[in-house]
Amino acid sequence: MQLHCPLPGSSSDVVQMAHGAGGRLSRELMEKVFLPHLSNSLLESLDDQAKLSLSSGNVAFTTDSYVVSPLFFPGGTIGELAVYGTVNDLAVGGAVPEFLSAGFVIEEGFAFADLEKIVVSFAAAARKAGVQVVTGDTKVVERGKCDGVYITTSGIGVIREDVAVSCRNLVPGDVVILSGSIGDHGISVLAAREGLSLQSGLESDSAPLHAMIAFLLDAFPGVHAMRDPTRGGVAAALNELASASGVGIELDEDQIPVKPEVKGACELLGIDPVSVANEGKVLVFVPERGAEPVLEAMKAHKEGMHATLIGRVVAGHPGQVVMKTVYGSRRVVDMPLGEQLPRIC
Amino acid sequence: MQLHCPLPGSSSDVVQMAHGAGGRLSRELMEKVFLPHLSNSLLESLDDQAKLSLSSGNVAFTTDSYVVSPLFFPGGTIGELAVYGTVNDLAVGGAVPEFLSAGFVIEEGFAFADLEKIVVSFAAAARKAGVQVVTGDTKVVERGKCDGVYITTSGIGVIREDVAVSCRNLVPGDVVILSGSIGDHGISVLAAREGLSLQSGLESDSAPLHAMIAFLLDAFPGVHAMRDPTRGGVAAALNELASASGVGIELDEDQIPVKPEVKGACELLGIDPVSVANEGKVLVFVPERGAEPVLEAMKAHKEGMHATLIGRVVAGHPGQVVMKTVYGSRRVVDMPLGEQLPRIC
Repeated sequence: MQLHCPLPGSSSDVVQMAHGAGGRLSRELMEKVFLPHLSNSLLESLDDQAKLSLSSGNVAFTTDSYVVSPLFFPGGTIGELAVYGTVNDLAVGGAVPEFLSAGFVIEEGFAFADLEKIVVSFAAAARKAGVQVVTGDTKVVERGKCDGVYITTSGIGVIREDVAVSCRNLVPGDVVILSGSIGDHGISVLAAREGLSLQSGLESDSAPLHAMIAFLLDAFPGVHAMRDPTRGGVAAALNELASASGVGIELDEDQIPVKPEVKGACELLGIDPVSVANEGKVLVFVPERGAEPVLEAMKAHKEGMHATLIGRVVAGHPGQVVMKTVYGSRRVVDMPLGEQLPRIC
Repeated sequence: MQLHCPLPGSSSDVVQMAHGAGGRLSRELMEKVFLPHLSNSLLESLDDQAKLSLSSGNVAFTTDSYVVSPLFFPGGTIGELAVYGTVNDLAVGGAVPEFLSAGFVIEEGFAFADLEKIVVSFAAAARKAGVQVVTGDTKVVERGKCDGVYITTSGIGVIREDVAVSCRNLVPGDVVILSGSIGDHGISVLAAREGLSLQSGLESDSAPLHAMIAFLLDAFPGVHAMRDPTRGGVAAALNELASASGVGIELDEDQIPVKPEVKGACELLGIDPVSVANEGKVLVFVPERGAEPVLEAMKAHKEGMHATLIGRVVAGHPGQVVMKTVYGSRRVVDMPLGEQLPRIC
């Protein structure tokens, strides 16, 4: 990409501090790199705020910052992650994702070619997820004050009137459904970062879940809770929900799908697949009678093809997640402490 | 602040990578540093999305990333800036600011004491601006991949039904009103960064403008446009509006309030006060008959005490801003090119 770049001694193929200063070069960065891919009438107005007309004032609002390293990994980019992560956080709240904002912090010297690749993947992901990117901001910081690009997205979705999900809604008797194999994202990013080649061609599961979730809610609106098990994996998500609802959760290790290459990598690294991040999976908590319609609806979608019932909500051991292992023993699945896999999203 | 911090060899008074990994330490970071100051029922639900009930589906939505250096400067902190900047972007769109999201990217090794100072100022600013912080995220990156803390906020406000402002609404005959002196923020941050001491005690003008703007809109709802002249200063804001509306703007240098210490610093540095960032000022564009009620309403507020009419919108030289200088000559006020003052917000 050629940018008009009249600063003395500057090179035209990388981002410079001047692109972040709010003047002519900031404007060019917006007009040449972002707008061509993200074009829509709301964004193009270039007002400092987007004016939205929502079909209802009952909305879900969420935000996440994305600092994944590396920026490009098998199955995705930071751009896709920044869209799908936020879209999924809206969808699991029972909302139809509609609008996104994006704040890019860019390191001085970052190649325009790479920035454009990220913006292109970001825009394609937004189209796939059915959301409009309506407002944004870019900042540039000096070399060594960022790691290429960080993106923060916020999302707004209109909450479905027929649905009332919350992490405090689990009750004993609910079943726990997982939409597919776990750990694909975390292990893919780790492998890319460490330069390991996984011969199997394992890829991140990064994907938008709004369509599958809308479909399963149509099939059974009485879902109690949903959560996408991202950072901290299934272990963190289940512990949070057990604790918020004051219930116990029992899992069947047998039933949790883990690809052999993920299992292998986890054994090698001494980490537990249940605490590895996913970016295209959802946990669904439903009364037992909802299990069949929900599973059927999920399996009709690519993202839920391997959906399966992995456990139950119980009255015993409130706040605790207990797993029946493949060996028949029982072990507590703790909230992960910390940094087994940093900068995974 | 004492955090439970059981990692071997770790020190408990700085942020570690593990605080960003989505596990128990992430939870502690949230519960010990953020929630005590930002407490509200929506945030405390700890769902991955906040569920809001807006009085109307006509909303303004905006986002900005804040990377100011240093994090603490005379008259403000990055926390205040991150609240007021986004609140003001909503207010100048004719919206009543209601909800904020916050994404914090934190550098490993950052002192908890400083993080808490930032969160405390962030929370106080939100209270002052009348907004609730309802959803957020924290990420931690390795030393040298950030500069302490970056914050991205997004805001939602309900648009007033009696107001229709837009950067495309200027028409010849409109007058340009500025709420007070320019350049205070940019010069204060620069002085703090370079270790210069300004004997005068100059401070950033960082402030929420929602109350004054609501008051002036009550007095005269027929305002055509408003803009807070932040990054790129009054020059960037006026050039953007002139270009968006296809009109010219004429300024009276005589009428633009610049404090002597800002003028002096700008002369020393060879920069133009009209291109220096402000964080508590607004430009208001109104038909001539609105000038008096708007000025009167602004002057009734501390933030607009020194409000003054600085120019007019004209049909000639569309897209161009021309200033009658104090010497009686005329010069074009260009869109600033780039980085006179980087990382000012």
